[in-house]
Amino acid sequence: TYGDEVDEYSIKTSTEVAEAVRTGRPVVALESTIVSHGLPRPDNLKVAQEIEQTVRDAGAVPATIGMVGGQLIVGLNEPQLTHLATADGVAKLSVRDLAVAAASGADGATTVAATAAVAARAGIPVFATGGLGGVHRAAAESFDESADLTALASTPVTVVCAGVKSILDVGATLERLETLGVPVVGYGTRRFPGFYLSDSGYDLDWSVGSPEDVARIMRARAGHGVSDAGLIVANPLPADEQLDPQLHDRVLSEGLAGLAREQITGKSVTPYLLAHFHAATEGRSLAVNVRIILRNAALAAAVAVAYARP
Amino acid sequence: TYGDEVDEYSIKTSTEVAEAVRTGRPVVALESTIVSHGLPRPDNLKVAQEIEQTVRDAGAVPATIGMVGGQLIVGLNEPQLTHLATADGVAKLSVRDLAVAAASGADGATTVAATAAVAARAGIPVFATGGLGGVHRAAAESFDESADLTALASTPVTVVCAGVKSILDVGATLERLETLGVPVVGYGTRRFPGFYLSDSGYDLDWSVGSPEDVARIMRARAGHGVSDAGLIVANPLPADEQLDPQLHDRVLSEGLAGLAREQITGKSVTPYLLAHFHAATEGRSLAVNVRIILRNAALAAAVAVAYARP
Amino acid sequence: TYGDEVDEYSIKTSTEVAEAVRTGRPVVALESTIVSHGLPRPDNLKVAQEIEQTVRDAGAVPATIGMVGGQLIVGLNEPQLTHLATADGVAKLSVRDLAVAAASGADGATTVAATAAVAARAGIPVFATGGLGGVHRAAAESFDESADLTALASTPVTVVCAGVKSILDVGATLERLETLGVPVVGYGTRRFPGFYLSDSGYDLDWSVGSPEDVARIMRARAGHGVSDAGLIVANPLPADEQLDPQLHDRVLSEGLAGLAREQITGKSVTPYLLAHFHAATEGRSLAVNVRIILRNAALAAAVAVAYARP
Ligand SMILES: [Mn+2]
Ligand SMILES: [Mn+2]
Ligand SMILES: [Mn+2]
Repeated sequence: TYGDEVDEYSIKTSTEVAEAVRTGRPVVALESTIVSHGLPRPDNLKVAQEIEQTVRDAGAVPATIGMVGGQLIVGLNEPQLTHLATADGVAKLSVRDLAVAAASGADGATTVAATAAVAARAGIPVFATGGLGGVHRAAAESFDESADLTALASTPVTVVCAGVKSILDVGATLERLETLGVPVVGYGTRRFPGFYLSDSGYDLDWSVGSPEDVARIMRARAGHGVSDAGLIVANPLPADEQLDPQLHDRVLSEGLAGLAREQITGKSVTPYLLAHFHAATEGRSLAVNVRIILRNAALAAAVAVAYARP
Repeated sequence: TYGDEVDEYSIKTSTEVAEAVRTGRPVVALESTIVSHGLPRPDNLKVAQEIEQTVRDAGAVPATIGMVGGQLIVGLNEPQLTHLATADGVAKLSVRDLAVAAASGADGATTVAATAAVAARAGIPVFATGGLGGVHRAAAESFDESADLTALASTPVTVVCAGVKSILDVGATLERLETLGVPVVGYGTRRFPGFYLSDSGYDLDWSVGSPEDVARIMRARAGHGVSDAGLIVANPLPADEQLDPQLHDRVLSEGLAGLAREQITGKSVTPYLLAHFHAATEGRSLAVNVRIILRNAALAAAVAVAYARP
Repeated sequence: TYGDEVDEYSIKTSTEVAEAVRTGRPVVALESTIVSHGLPRPDNLKVAQEIEQTVRDAGAVPATIGMVGGQLIVGLNEPQLTHLATADGVAKLSVRDLAVAAASGADGATTVAATAAVAARAGIPVFATGGLGGVHRAAAESFDESADLTALASTPVTVVCAGVKSILDVGATLERLETLGVPVVGYGTRRFPGFYLSDSGYDLDWSVGSPEDVARIMRARAGHGVSDAGLIVANPLPADEQLDPQLHDRVLSEGLAGLAREQITGKSVTPYLLAHFHAATEGRSLAVNVRIILRNAALAAAVAVAYARP
């Protein structure tokens, strides 16, 4: 028997988070990829702390998820968060990487898919992030589709996000979510948000008006017992906080043209386009990104509070 | 704790259906989309009642599934069925819509995916419908693939249907079912039926000759315990009851040409093509549709009877 | 109640395998498709026995899986293995075919998907094969993708293989595995092997150096409890045992040109290409195939031994 080793690999939940889950108090799961890979240093650590504080201010317990030295942790403490924000060689971990990384003792940040899956396992039903992964623009040929979509098909967690980045194929992403049985509701809108933009140009079938509405859907899912899929709450930036649409469209066109001109394909596409957005908007895309995640953290906390309410 | 609210959202099963499930008597699940969206009024209600009577005549209990005022119901009673057949604004609900619609108190009709998933949850192992959703003709670019296929990959229900409509990509649909691990057996044939037509032109690997054969497959699946996928029993119309193949092929070509000419894409494609079939066949496509669902209800009832036999 | 019939369809496990599983001794599942369909007679039976002996020599119990007369068997005995190696009309069974074949009393050999699924059900966590199925080269249009990939997304079994055959779309196959959440680790390499070739030209994110490394990943997966996906251990042939790369590339080009010239599509593509490889390499592709499966059996046994170690 290898009982000890299995135990060695069990998920470690912080005392505060474990206590909140046990007593039914509101908790919001948070991903660590934005900390390690999504934002430049040294702002990344500061933003990670602001995200957690936003959750606390709204009455919920933050549970940032990541891996330190092979240990999968729910509720990273300050030194652990600092380590993932500053160490070199922090891996980006999707669900399929978790066990491999743990066995090799790696440091790692969890993607949307991995954070949602670990949160569900730890009994945390609400999760805030910036944007989802999706179907890539050339996916008809490359088959490059994010594991985020597939993971949400069997992970009963509510994900508050601002849609998917426009560098992806938004229409195909929405179709894939429909095929996979993952519901998408707009928060105060029936248009799917476009991450940097308030409106991606795509319609949604359903919208909700309050955190209580979202909590009610979560209760109905549990009550029916028919589906294990997640729930995507698509929370757009207000029009006056979005990236200027004209600037966005110009920068996106330039970026896509740059890909063709420099013959960039595969895994280099996303980093190239994000760096291009950062440079060509003189950092405004990054500021928008931070606003998105803070707003989503606040809404996720309100949903967790509504869902925990007796 | 929100125990009361979860109970509020539990599935309501009619007394007759609940009693039949409890005592192991044969039950056939039926979808409500054909009632609310598939057939024109006022025939739709009459046909719905004929379908139920067909199931009863074959010795099984019909369990039509739908949502009234946010309540998910297995075994709609007469007033509920009448409501879904006559009310305005009845939503079309796939699996992912069930909890959202319930939380908003909507009226809704369940698709193949949703009916199968709810039937499985309610302990009903057999389901009759007209045709499955499938992969759309432009799906290589649009990614438009019905959630029916994905749902059947993890829903252990036997679905009796007449294949998929020829307005879809039949070959791609069969490939997707293979990839997803959903078995397809022809009833008395090794050719996949073409809904309006007895033969879609595609081969099947397996055929069955009797309801007992189907029941035996269901027992083997349960005995093995290896797969949670559904089982598609593809039941073709007899050649002399199908839509005239020459008429079918001409109407389909005209319809596809109309799509191109009028630049119709996305969610408008299916309604356009079905309306075109209705008009261009002077209602014969609709009469065929009714024959299909009545024949499938009779076969599904025979399968349910064979499966329930001690 | 149909308790007796369900029992009739239960999986039959050989006494030796059942005893090994019960006492936690190392077991390696083996597929039977290579015996019935993958290798020419009469060598196929001899090779099947060599594979089993290789597993025994490394200290594990072989459990070849297949179906005889409708009975699904884990641990085929000598007469059963001989039957599948020599009988006519042995079906090739993926997961979705198992119940249908059992109900019709068929003889059948199990694919990678079916072998993995049955092994998991029988409590055998390690499986050796030659190569996986994958995404076909024309899949963007044909939607032809092996059920092996989908099955591994929800089957917690470690599969030792030498990658996928180059007649498939290797890049698309790797993308699909990522989307489906199935981890792939290279054994002693960070390049995905190309079956006949040591290197397919595609990179991997992770590599392992020993059977103990693999066992550690399996323990981490069990410890986390986050994913039910399998684990692919991609074990390349040493460079001096592979098919000569120049020969390989020439034969592959000729084969693909032959497909176009002779207008071969659909299910005829793979048999055509494999027969072409056999003929055009004067049997060397077949000898390489045998070396691959023997090496993978040895590695899988070492992994099973490491995983069973207290
Ligand atoms: Mn990707
Ligand atoms: Mn669709
Ligand atoms: Mn195929």
